[in-house]
Amino acid sequence: MTAAASFDAMFAALAPIGRNPVSGGYRRFAWTAEDAALREWFAGAAGDRGLTVTIDRAGNQWAWWGDPDRDGGPAVAVGSHLDSVPDGGAYDGPLGVVCALAAIDVLRERGFMPGRPLAVVNFTDEEGSRFGVACMGSRVLTGALTADRARSLRDRDGVTLAEAMAHAGRAPDQLGADPEVVRRVGAFVELHVEQGRGLVDLGRPVGIGAAIWPHGRWRFDLPGEANHAGTTGLDDRRDPMSALAVLLTEASAAARARECLATVGRLEVAPNAVNAIAARVSAWLDARGASEASVRLLVDDVATACGIAAAEESFTAATEFDDQLVGRLSTRLDNAPVLTTGAGHDAGILARAGIPAAMLFVRNPTGVSHSPAEFAERDDCVAGVEALVAVLEDLAG
Amino acid sequence: MTAAASFDAMFAALAPIGRNPVSGGYRRFAWTAEDAALREWFAGAAGDRGLTVTIDRAGNQWAWWGDPDRDGGPAVAVGSHLDSVPDGGAYDGPLGVVCALAAIDVLRERGFMPGRPLAVVNFTDEEGSRFGVACMGSRVLTGALTADRARSLRDRDGVTLAEAMAHAGRAPDQLGADPEVVRRVGAFVELHVEQGRGLVDLGRPVGIGAAIWPHGRWRFDLPGEANHAGTTGLDDRRDPMSALAVLLTEASAAARARECLATVGRLEVAPNAVNAIAARVSAWLDARGASEASVRLLVDDVATACGIAAAEESFTAATEFDDQLVGRLSTRLDNAPVLTTGAGHDAGILARAGIPAAMLFVRNPTGVSHSPAEFAERDDCVAGVEALVAVLEDLAG
Repeated sequence: MTAAASFDAMFAALAPIGRNPVSGGYRRFAWTAEDAALREWFAGAAGDRGLTVTIDRAGNQWAWWGDPDRDGGPAVAVGSHLDSVPDGGAYDGPLGVVCALAAIDVLRERGFMPGRPLAVVNFTDEEGSRFGVACMGSRVLTGALTADRARSLRDRDGVTLAEAMAHAGRAPDQLGADPEVVRRVGAFVELHVEQGRGLVDLGRPVGIGAAIWPHGRWRFDLPGEANHAGTTGLDDRRDPMSALAVLLTEASAAARARECLATVGRLEVAPNAVNAIAARVSAWLDARGASEASVRLLVDDVATACGIAAAEESFTAATEFDDQLVGRLSTRLDNAPVLTTGAGHDAGILARAGIPAAMLFVRNPTGVSHSPAEFAERDDCVAGVEALVAVLEDLAG
Repeated sequence: MTAAASFDAMFAALAPIGRNPVSGGYRRFAWTAEDAALREWFAGAAGDRGLTVTIDRAGNQWAWWGDPDRDGGPAVAVGSHLDSVPDGGAYDGPLGVVCALAAIDVLRERGFMPGRPLAVVNFTDEEGSRFGVACMGSRVLTGALTADRARSLRDRDGVTLAEAMAHAGRAPDQLGADPEVVRRVGAFVELHVEQGRGLVDLGRPVGIGAAIWPHGRWRFDLPGEANHAGTTGLDDRRDPMSALAVLLTEASAAARARECLATVGRLEVAPNAVNAIAARVSAWLDARGASEASVRLLVDDVATACGIAAAEESFTAATEFDDQLVGRLSTRLDNAPVLTTGAGHDAGILARAGIPAAMLFVRNPTGVSHSPAEFAERDDCVAGVEALVAVLEDLAG
């Protein structure tokens, strides 16, 4: 099977799972029925290729070619995640998993005999769409997030992660760091659709990720007092929408002043009724930048402007990928361009846990991501498969 | 049974229905299971009192004492509604229904023989919490809202009113104006908890509503483009939160400038994800004021500031209640103070349809309404029952 045919077949098989017919976007959230379908698909695709699937204590799925504890380990791992943001696109996550499995097909066809074990991984809950913490699977795996904190996280309906896992047939008391699995992984290369137009500008289908900006999420709970919209005088109001206006304005201004990115993409209003002054608005600020100091100053600017302390929901410091690995990938891939990204990834979490890691990016013609409009040309996706083949031949040959 | 005992028993029976244990507020929305429980309670309470219950083509429940088509009609009607805003209080609506039924008990006990028929009404979907149009029951009843438009309204899950009614066992094709029922009602007096502190300042437990401000609801759909929060440059963004900040700021400023009330109490964000720039924000503006011109200028101010046309979801012009009826109530109730309110009510819709109507307000010690904190002293509620008894003795004696 050619790289293209293998890619096409798998990408088509995933297309219907969790797709919302109204928005055209994907809703693939951790430990839901859609997630179960994706995990089942992954196990089946791995089995079809003669790979052995194990699930680590954080819930991530690993498909092994060779025994990582015996056949010259540690292993070279590739892969990404299958979950999505609300109404996300088809590429963010699945592209890395599908290209990895397609690369295995190509290697098999070429009669490749690995000098060390290979693995394809499907990380659990990378987007954090349901429980608010991104890269949950890799964070718990590496101990960056404790099992106790993870288990107690709640989704918008008040369901804890522990309850959601139990409902999905997993044992939440087994959740936790899994150093034996971490030890099995000698290198990790995550292929991902680019979330920007760097490769478009450079005219290259594939690039290499060398670093991730420091980034985090903060929640602002703006207090108010519910009251009747039609009878409460302007001076008798405690309306959190006033603070929200200040917060939104300052987030935008501070991002420019600090040369950072700031986004308020999520709001929760209670009771959210047309004819009642809101009792409470929660606003989430996503902030990223080249330096941790500038990101933290931005968050302080917003907190000061609206007079509300920021609750830090997650923060990830700047991540530099492995110099040697990045250099080796660039050489092997015809001096592919090296990029820095503002997006967090499981590869960054693994790098921070001491695993040599790097990323490959596939060109995104519009740069749009986290949207149903997210797209990559099929030829560029196939170029991604070929790049992974070259990388695996090099690292595991 | 005394007025107080009768009031207490009914108010206690309603207390658990639709109460959210977390917020402490009520979630009683049209054509839901909670609504069905409230309607069943009303039918049972009417039956206990020997009243005959009919349901008009708009879904409102009428409990008759005497035959309105024969016993010297048209009838004198009292009552209000049982539905609530999201996380609303216990009094807005139910107080008027419970006081009306308690007044019937007192009249029965006194051996009152009506000279014309009496009715207690439970209007359907007064708050418009589910389908966005307030006073749905009275608007459809009087033809102010067409059945076709009503049937096609959708709730937040995309369920149409027609589907919701069918699900609740009603025939949506029967929905429509009901001139025969309108003809039966010769006068309507709606008792309601005050939504402000007018009576507190005046030191009176009961007042009379003489007019309702012009008021309406407008929706602003702020367009954007979903994209990744961490990789999209500030100048490449189409973020609807910028327009939202302007909208919120201008709504507040224009309300002061125009001497009106303006409230943004409801927002819907899509996809509402922390790490995605919003593709769309919808904001609802509730605006009210002493003159229609000033309200419409305020809405124009907001539309101009944020550059988005306002979609009018409902508008109700200024309503003057029946002069003669207001005068008669005031005389009968020891010169009770006469108030104007910014809140819409079914009594206003009936007045606009030519039915002589007026309102009674019961003192609200904090003025808070549309909130779990909404409250009225029990003695003032009982004073409301006594006021309705006096009004019914006068109008139907």
